[in-house]
Amino acid sequence: MGQQKALLFHGAVIHSVSPTDLEILESALIITDTDGQIILFEKNADHVPDVLNLPTHPDLKIDDVEIHRLSEGEFLIPGLIDTHNHAPQYPQRGQGQGLHILDWLSAVTFPKEAKFADPEYARRVYARCIDGFLKQGITTAAYYASAHGEATRILADLCLAKGQRALVGKCNMDRNAPDYYRDASVEESLAVTEECIAHIRRIDPHSTLVQPVLTPRFAITCDPAALAGLGAIAAREPDLPIQTHFNEARQEMAATKELFPQFACETDLYAHFGLLGPRSILAHCCYMSEYELQRFVELGCGIAHCPVSNMTIGGGFMTAPVREFLRRGIKVGLGTDSGGGFSSSVLDAMRQALIASNAREVMSEGKDKGLAIEELFYMATLGGARVCSLEGKVGNFAVGKEFDACLISTVVEDQIMTMVEADDTLKVVFEKFAMTGDDRNITHVFVRGRRVK
Amino acid sequence: MGQQKALLFHGAVIHSVSPTDLEILESALIITDTDGQIILFEKNADHVPDVLNLPTHPDLKIDDVEIHRLSEGEFLIPGLIDTHNHAPQYPQRGQGQGLHILDWLSAVTFPKEAKFADPEYARRVYARCIDGFLKQGITTAAYYASAHGEATRILADLCLAKGQRALVGKCNMDRNAPDYYRDASVEESLAVTEECIAHIRRIDPHSTLVQPVLTPRFAITCDPAALAGLGAIAAREPDLPIQTHFNEARQEMAATKELFPQFACETDLYAHFGLLGPRSILAHCCYMSEYELQRFVELGCGIAHCPVSNMTIGGGFMTAPVREFLRRGIKVGLGTDSGGGFSSSVLDAMRQALIASNAREVMSEGKDKGLAIEELFYMATLGGARVCSLEGKVGNFAVGKEFDACLISTVVEDQIMTMVEADDTLKVVFEKFAMTGDDRNITHVFVRGRRVK
Repeated sequence: MGQQKALLFHGAVIHSVSPTDLEILESALIITDTDGQIILFEKNADHVPDVLNLPTHPDLKIDDVEIHRLSEGEFLIPGLIDTHNHAPQYPQRGQGQGLHILDWLSAVTFPKEAKFADPEYARRVYARCIDGFLKQGITTAAYYASAHGEATRILADLCLAKGQRALVGKCNMDRNAPDYYRDASVEESLAVTEECIAHIRRIDPHSTLVQPVLTPRFAITCDPAALAGLGAIAAREPDLPIQTHFNEARQEMAATKELFPQFACETDLYAHFGLLGPRSILAHCCYMSEYELQRFVELGCGIAHCPVSNMTIGGGFMTAPVREFLRRGIKVGLGTDSGGGFSSSVLDAMRQALIASNAREVMSEGKDKGLAIEELFYMATLGGARVCSLEGKVGNFAVGKEFDACLISTVVEDQIMTMVEADDTLKVVFEKFAMTGDDRNITHVFVRGRRVK
Repeated sequence: MGQQKALLFHGAVIHSVSPTDLEILESALIITDTDGQIILFEKNADHVPDVLNLPTHPDLKIDDVEIHRLSEGEFLIPGLIDTHNHAPQYPQRGQGQGLHILDWLSAVTFPKEAKFADPEYARRVYARCIDGFLKQGITTAAYYASAHGEATRILADLCLAKGQRALVGKCNMDRNAPDYYRDASVEESLAVTEECIAHIRRIDPHSTLVQPVLTPRFAITCDPAALAGLGAIAAREPDLPIQTHFNEARQEMAATKELFPQFACETDLYAHFGLLGPRSILAHCCYMSEYELQRFVELGCGIAHCPVSNMTIGGGFMTAPVREFLRRGIKVGLGTDSGGGFSSSVLDAMRQALIASNAREVMSEGKDKGLAIEELFYMATLGGARVCSLEGKVGNFAVGKEFDACLISTVVEDQIMTMVEADDTLKVVFEKFAMTGDDRNITHVFVRGRRVK
């Protein structure tokens, strides 16, 4: 058994069962075991039981359980999932607005990321980064680290120590990056990747929290031999997730096409190197042809939708066809894309996904209907879990999953969230939180049953 | 002389001189008199003087002055100006996303606003509303109150008591609104308006802080006789500002056209009733023909740009042609449009104005270039002051203006703002604040030299 206490929560619970099915429960009961696994989820429970009588856990006594009775104005939601996040860009959020994507990389991002060659700097900034995202209720993050092996291992160590569920990948970039910041060679790029994978497997052998992820920055910065090498690792390790930037911006797509004229599109390119499948997390996907959409369905790829950066950084205003992804059953979650995205909040990503979808509705002349709040919240939780291939573990409160959750209080001392009124239904309270709440309303954060905020 | 202490600030100051000219001063000196008027503004001052020697204020001694030495990481900006805000919608921010504008009014807004018939409710909610906006650094707000006379007077009383600069208008709505919430007749609508004007003139005879504003909700809810009556008041009172909703959404414009078939456009309609001129604050202006743009230039009208509500509430995704307004010299400021807009922050309005302008750039095929951070900040401060006809009093730190300001700290205990690094220039620190800071970074707020946060 684990080192934690078993937990019991009684009160309002809100979670997604599907993109359109949001369960809003006034009075639910959730119990976890000492490993943070959900062992009971009763949707209607009028009180905390005096005695536990769980056939699966006959030895668990009510006196051994840490009991949380939610007050009026409090409710539980699943932990928020950030499917696309550049940890070393944490100190540059909001900087360089208005620059085109490749110019922004050269002028702002590469000089900043290069600083992570210094392990002390990495330790200091990554500690703040993880704290900052846990504070925002982000229980799972898919992180791109910098290109540096040591800094990447530090990021993984810190995620484990601080208790954040994370995918951590050393960024592969052996070309089209400045001399002062790139992998020395394809061989070095792959060797450092292998070291990072081995390190993460060593510190968390059962992937309880931290997993490695293959992270070619994008094809522009990867020699074909590097992509082939990563593809070989992917073939060898069938559970290893893969993340990259995909059909993000016209400028990026044109540069990719010039480097890889033999491929009709990025789907063909990455598929050729064995990097597309059910464990692939493709960030952005703003421009998707009918062919690429079909291939995504066949391949089972997941999409990290990053509305904030899509509409700011990157030379213009891009809106991914999220309605189309949902319609076809393509997995889709939300990414803050911090620091291309200016916000470190998945709640902000939800709001901006709403705005992007409204734009999309207008631009598609009504074909791609704007997203509903249920769909936005699904992407922020269960959808994100699916994209990260973690839906068996997290994303909602199904029995058997691990308890990653945020306790929301809609009445805190210092808040900007819309005031709750006596006649508000729980649905309205949830809507007010989703549209106007912030980290101050996220009073407790749990990952695998451990309180991390 | 006033009842306050004279103030002295020494340190970093950032303010707008024009839409494109942002002054970023590392070490400035600002002194106010005891009435909160700026009597000295030195752009480069290496220290706080030991002796004051002001020809205009020979009696002011340094010992009588409250001295604020700004620390590293602190800077002053002008108070933020919210040119469009529905005070009674404060408790509904974020509610009813996805509803079309007229449906949203019926389903959410009118029932909520009707509650302000109860003066106790009005007192309680308006107190929280004003506190909430002051907390966000909003030193001036152009408020639509509800239709109720007493609640409107309460809002004005509270703005004065709490020290917020405000335009306060009783909302005129004698038709096309539910029986339970509308003016009983045109006569009553106008009589209550006159009472509110008289009340505000009585409590603040020199308009030091609070001014009345004519507030026909929009032509849909106003009988022609009501508009004519308001036009007559405007003609009688040449300093009285006027605010209404203007060319907001297709659904609204079509309904207006049906009610007023004799007018080719809303410009002709409101101009006919004597409601368009240099003191008019027109909210939204999403759809503007060449003719209407030209008329706005001739008439000197100002525009309250409300990007958050334009892109969420109201049935779709609307982007006002702000680049075009700036190009033609039409006055334009930012409005939160709380509660149609889900945010109570002008910083959020800046960020969403950036996003709306990026969309506009794409939709106009590059003609309407996206807005720069200088232009966004101008709209949030000096531009807003011009829209409210207050540029002689506030908007930046020119000598002779009143001291409405926010003291920004970029290093506070609990913040989500991007961390500042040792090598960041003041421009970068400002950019990080503008894109990622929030009310927690606004540590002090002053209106007319009085500290209100």
